Amino acid sequence: MFESAELGHKIAKKTYEAELPALREALLDAQYELVQKRGFQVVMIVSGVNGGGRRESVRLLNEWLDARHIDTHGMGEPSDEERDRPPMWRFWRNLPPKGRIAIFQGSWYSQALIDRVYRHTKTADLEEAMERNIRFEEMLADEGALILKFWFHLSKNNQEKRLRSLEKDPLTRWRVTERDWQHFKLYDRFYKTASHALRMTSTASAPWYIIEGTDERYRNLTLGTIVLEALRKRLELTAPPARPLANMPSLPRVDQQNLLGALDLTLALPKKTYEKKLEEYQGRLALLTREPAFQNLSVVVVFEGNDAAGKGGAIRRIISALDARMYQIIPTAAPTDEERAHPYLWRFWRRIPRRGQLAIFDRSWYGRVLVERVEGYCSEYDWMRAYNEINDFETQLVEHRIVLVKFWLSISKDEQLRRFKAREQTGFKHYKITEEDWRNREKWDLYEQAVCDMVDRTSTEIAPWTLVEAEDKNYARIKVLRTLCERIEAAL
Amino acid sequence: MFESAELGHKIAKKTYEAELPALREALLDAQYELVQKRGFQVVMIVSGVNGGGRRESVRLLNEWLDARHIDTHGMGEPSDEERDRPPMWRFWRNLPPKGRIAIFQGSWYSQALIDRVYRHTKTADLEEAMERNIRFEEMLADEGALILKFWFHLSKNNQEKRLRSLEKDPLTRWRVTERDWQHFKLYDRFYKTASHALRMTSTASAPWYIIEGTDERYRNLTLGTIVLEALRKRLELTAPPARPLANMPSLPRVDQQNLLGALDLTLALPKKTYEKKLEEYQGRLALLTREPAFQNLSVVVVFEGNDAAGKGGAIRRIISALDARMYQIIPTAAPTDEERAHPYLWRFWRRIPRRGQLAIFDRSWYGRVLVERVEGYCSEYDWMRAYNEINDFETQLVEHRIVLVKFWLSISKDEQLRRFKAREQTGFKHYKITEEDWRNREKWDLYEQAVCDMVDRTSTEIAPWTLVEAEDKNYARIKVLRTLCERIEAAL
Repeated sequence: MFESAELGHKIAKKTYEAELPALREALLDAQYELVQKRGFQVVMIVSGVNGGGRRESVRLLNEWLDARHIDTHGMGEPSDEERDRPPMWRFWRNLPPKGRIAIFQGSWYSQALIDRVYRHTKTADLEEAMERNIRFEEMLADEGALILKFWFHLSKNNQEKRLRSLEKDPLTRWRVTERDWQHFKLYDRFYKTASHALRMTSTASAPWYIIEGTDERYRNLTLGTIVLEALRKRLELTAPPARPLANMPSLPRVDQQNLLGALDLTLALPKKTYEKKLEEYQGRLALLTREPAFQNLSVVVVFEGNDAAGKGGAIRRIISALDARMYQIIPTAAPTDEERAHPYLWRFWRRIPRRGQLAIFDRSWYGRVLVERVEGYCSEYDWMRAYNEINDFETQLVEHRIVLVKFWLSISKDEQLRRFKAREQTGFKHYKITEEDWRNREKWDLYEQAVCDMVDRTSTEIAPWTLVEAEDKNYARIKVLRTLCERIEAAL
Repeated sequence: MFESAELGHKIAKKTYEAELPALREALLDAQYELVQKRGFQVVMIVSGVNGGGRRESVRLLNEWLDARHIDTHGMGEPSDEERDRPPMWRFWRNLPPKGRIAIFQGSWYSQALIDRVYRHTKTADLEEAMERNIRFEEMLADEGALILKFWFHLSKNNQEKRLRSLEKDPLTRWRVTERDWQHFKLYDRFYKTASHALRMTSTASAPWYIIEGTDERYRNLTLGTIVLEALRKRLELTAPPARPLANMPSLPRVDQQNLLGALDLTLALPKKTYEKKLEEYQGRLALLTREPAFQNLSVVVVFEGNDAAGKGGAIRRIISALDARMYQIIPTAAPTDEERAHPYLWRFWRRIPRRGQLAIFDRSWYGRVLVERVEGYCSEYDWMRAYNEINDFETQLVEHRIVLVKFWLSISKDEQLRRFKAREQTGFKHYKITEEDWRNREKWDLYEQAVCDMVDRTSTEIAPWTLVEAEDKNYARIKVLRTLCERIEAAL
């Protein structure tokens, strides 16, 4: 893995000074083209051994390129806000939009590597973390990001020399800490761990570049050349990178049965029972959210359902039991420009609640496998891979003690028609019915297929779907409230 | 995961009989087109719960389709030949060539699922096995295979009913064994484990199809329809599925140093020393391979190197120390038609030696990242992904106690010229020099880059490359023999 980076690469001052101006100019040109076209973003990791030139390289990139279009992320200890969310949240929030470059000094590799070097974890844990990284980067690449991963390497000898020479110079002495020497003692372990991790995660779409860090001029020239070539290659692509076609059929519908058809839509609650139960469950919910242990978890509620199935009404019945400082409702409409410039799940990651908070999504990340699939807003490959990406995402939520409750509110086609017509005739509900609703209705069967596929592929042990018979609004609201109470109780 | 497959799907006899003839005809049509075009192969997994209809479905497919172009693999207990090789070997050897359909009843999922259900392994082990399966199937898909994974499901109730009814009928009683009831007791565990595994491995290019197994007509119609649609969709693709472009630059060469340049090609051995050492190491190798413990391992030696670097001579020095029944030499030339019809690594998997045996590859799977890369015989994406695929492959070898020794024999461009000319003038060596050798020589720099990338990306803790200074043949042969002896010693 590191053979080439222990050869003692060197560049003469003369050569360096001769080549530098052209390289810098070309880099700036490429960056401006990136900024103007906004066709993709650049996600850059700068990592490696101590003294290998990470810090200097980050500074260099900010100097050579136009720093206004670069975000540099130090990624030291997580903040309390970050600790409240799943570990990957801090990287998601810092993903750059298309047209920008983000440099991560300290990345989704750091913690897992350090944990393993210090023997807090086993090889299997390291491997699991690396598999997650592979999937994360694959998702980024599928979303169009250019991923550049640099590892600055020093041989054991050279690292020791480097630390000693920094210590000798009064101007740089402060940079060598006790911790650096501690790390150095673990050089061999670090070497082995890094070599294993880098081999696993050097993939076709996100390979590692291992650069020898000893000679500054060599290091700089290599780094600059890779960044330039990678940018140029991507900019020169006329079409976005081709994606494999899935070309796999859905589970065909050979009989008349499906998950939605199996629901008993005659289920209903008389008004009196409803009002009694409503009070009961709202009271229970209010108490649950006031328990001290509730401050150690968060709740994410997802509402999906047919148009006019009563999502809004159900949400209102939940929040009227809650302190207004405890929740946010997140209506999911068409993505904003900023959201469109990021990987698909970014807009949802940014809304993940802190501890003790609830986030209620009125429609959600499932749009990818529902409306975007049916309307052809994304390719078959995109929505097919979304099932796995969503499962990965939800696994991270649940592992971080977030109670995830997902509702599909289901009504019949006839009932929808009645509600649409009623809305058109009721003044203040008129705004709730649009041309689009009528158009969606024409694709009823396609949506139904998409919903069944969605439940089949994303109703997991850890994040099951609750299908709600919503023909009768009273029944639906109580089922929603009861499920929510039970899930929170189970988690407390 | 299994919601849709517990609905009690049913098809009336009339409907079934009305739809069957057209389906069967269309299936046959599709299969003949597959056989004629030989554009891709079909890898099918038939799995699921006991009594869910696996056996019947396999029989059905062989009846509906033309069984002459189908291979059905039972995959029960591995044979002794199979146990001698890494676990995936038995699946590799049974991969179908393009144009054929292979049905695996029992697959690369079975053992990991059973081990987990019986608590022989932990969740982390299951997940690791599933990650390997994902990578294996991704490789198959990248190589063009159509992967169809079926899971036949029965609800707990229905499985019990099914077993009881089989038991009641004297004609089918033999089919219900003690083991079936044992399995049944573990239904809940099995359900949970399968659900976890299926969720993880249902990917965009190889999704699972979960089919309710209760009603035979429903099951058959669903299975047939999926196979038909999947075949049709793939056959109708005019171009092979598009692959993502890697578009990532190699590590640039900004100074004159590289791994090969760093070799000291002046290293040489005088004839006398050489002859002494040759005898010494050949004797040592002979003794090592006669040790009883040698019967518990196998050895794979890979020779790569510049043209005329002396691979053949080095190999001859190895085998003259060995019993001829112990080794095979595998010269790797252009692939045969049959090999071309299989995934790239298939031709090498089939040559993995049994216990107590050595396989010596004169050129190897590294052709993908050397000649195929340089000559453009495969796409950039193909050779980029090959590094990972090769690392996966070699990991499997090493984990199965196969000693893997990889040599790169390096000579200078001048020395190569001398040897080429000498060959042209020596009668019996004349056949060893071709037009192609001269053409390759013109691409010296491109090959050098490819070799350095190869070593950087595939010299791992478990399977390091040994770079051999081969300007002096004596020196090279002794280094090869010594390395081989040392590696075998370390393993014994």
